[in-house]
Amino acid sequence: MKAAVLNEFGSVEKFEILDVPIPKPGFNEVLVKVLATSVNPLDYQVRRGDYKNDLQLPVITGHDVSGVIVEIGKGVKNFKVGDEVYYTPEIFNGHGSYAEYHCANESIIGIKPKNVSHLEAATFPLAAGTAWEMLYSRAQLKINQTILIHGGAGGVGIPTIQMAKAMGTIVYTTARTIHHQFLKELGADHIIDYEKENYVDVILNLTNNKGVDVVIDTVGGETLADSGKVLSQMGQVVTIVDIEKPQNLIHAWGKNATYHFVFTRQNRNKLDELTKLIESGKLKPVLNKVFQLSEIAKAHSLLEFKEGDKNFYGKIGVQIGD
Amino acid sequence: MKAAVLNEFGSVEKFEILDVPIPKPGFNEVLVKVLATSVNPLDYQVRRGDYKNDLQLPVITGHDVSGVIVEIGKGVKNFKVGDEVYYTPEIFNGHGSYAEYHCANESIIGIKPKNVSHLEAATFPLAAGTAWEMLYSRAQLKINQTILIHGGAGGVGIPTIQMAKAMGTIVYTTARTIHHQFLKELGADHIIDYEKENYVDVILNLTNNKGVDVVIDTVGGETLADSGKVLSQMGQVVTIVDIEKPQNLIHAWGKNATYHFVFTRQNRNKLDELTKLIESGKLKPVLNKVFQLSEIAKAHSLLEFKEGDKNFYGKIGVQIGD
Repeated sequence: MKAAVLNEFGSVEKFEILDVPIPKPGFNEVLVKVLATSVNPLDYQVRRGDYKNDLQLPVITGHDVSGVIVEIGKGVKNFKVGDEVYYTPEIFNGHGSYAEYHCANESIIGIKPKNVSHLEAATFPLAAGTAWEMLYSRAQLKINQTILIHGGAGGVGIPTIQMAKAMGTIVYTTARTIHHQFLKELGADHIIDYEKENYVDVILNLTNNKGVDVVIDTVGGETLADSGKVLSQMGQVVTIVDIEKPQNLIHAWGKNATYHFVFTRQNRNKLDELTKLIESGKLKPVLNKVFQLSEIAKAHSLLEFKEGDKNFYGKIGVQIGD
Repeated sequence: MKAAVLNEFGSVEKFEILDVPIPKPGFNEVLVKVLATSVNPLDYQVRRGDYKNDLQLPVITGHDVSGVIVEIGKGVKNFKVGDEVYYTPEIFNGHGSYAEYHCANESIIGIKPKNVSHLEAATFPLAAGTAWEMLYSRAQLKINQTILIHGGAGGVGIPTIQMAKAMGTIVYTTARTIHHQFLKELGADHIIDYEKENYVDVILNLTNNKGVDVVIDTVGGETLADSGKVLSQMGQVVTIVDIEKPQNLIHAWGKNATYHFVFTRQNRNKLDELTKLIESGKLKPVLNKVFQLSEIAKAHSLLEFKEGDKNFYGKIGVQIGD
């Protein structure tokens, strides 16, 4: 099978499209013909070597699969050949989705939503799965709460806005002005251009100095420390961007804040919940650009460096096979 | 009435025992004759000026009251003259418990446990109230979980160990060797001398590298960042020591950790729960030294600098009136 293989970590030129053996499904595993994948920040972080201590070369990265089951391993109970499925491959095992076939334990795969294409379905598992993890499993967001989503136009920001609205909350988000109209249509109640306005002042003003119940940080850097300033008493921050640089969290104590640190975890249950949201129209794909597997270097350059489109937003799909 | 008044923030010499007017109970307030108070780190932090931006001089500090109601303001529904009560005064209003009388809103006071003296009762509201807040309200500790309590021999560590045991958990704690026997009797399962052993290694060894479900940080400093290393997946850290210095929290993401930042909040419900624990013998006072109000400077020197007893542990009581 064709796969985008990394024999070294580094720049986008490190990807080699090679012929490698089709994997064999082990106990409780299925073999999936991958029809689509997508590009996530985790993919370029893996490519450039951010997780080199957790991985052994050669590595195939890729954290979204949409495809069809072509073979069943022993012990598989919930799926059969021909089932259309979507999921996030296991993190850090070196066998990702940038390949024509992929093996996965049945415990981490879900039935693909019927109302979207494979390319659209592949936009969801990692990004929308992370949004679900943040809002449902961790912050346990409740109706009428207020939420600030940093980075609303990003791959995770977009499903997070849609889910937060579906949960009945008031959504504030940050994005550059060029993306405001799109985010308004997605359901955001108030959008702040962080290049033109101080979001702390805007949020405190909009909430009568009460602050928001939940802050979602998909941006990182100073955002983590500053988020304490816009929190209400007993407010919560959820962050998915790991930062080595020490952070001053002094505002957190006075607010009796809770900070949730989130790193991807896979499970079928989460995918089943996403499927309900997608099939009921509460969660829509925002697929803005599609590449072929042979163009994976270009796809990474666009997401990582906005090369070719400095205003790019939403997800990048990768079509696999014919 | 006599009170220990601060006309300036600074060293323990700043306390002046002065005659000041007895306060009058306002709407929903009661006037309490204070019979005992205690000394907390929050008191020396207030005294030395850590919170000078939140307070207006002159200031009376003191965050524990045990005493008897001598007058009832308009609107009070739940208490009457003669009731013996205990509570933490409202933080940062400048009218604390280092005084012969104190006014408080009825919403923050509780009926004193019957099986302890006023001096013993005054050891509980702030310290044990904080322990309750950490374990019950925030970490929501559950039976069979494992917990590491940093600073087990401190004013907050002692009630935290007792409550964690009463909740059916396995308790690891850190303390100097001289305090191990006492903490063993209090119920701790394993005590680590942080001056002689690396607690990260010990905990990982004792838990088969799984780590603990909950870390309680009553110590601060590097402990906050390092706690991530001893956490299990989805583990929780609760911290009560606010730190200005930036902290590297990189371990938190990989563990999908939740950090709870806690600052004192008052409510009667919490005191009613403490009373049940105290009257049922699950929570015992550890009152190690008693001073008179006129000796408040000495009491502060002992808690803040261990002046006069470098191995001091437990609570310091202050007797008020005859």
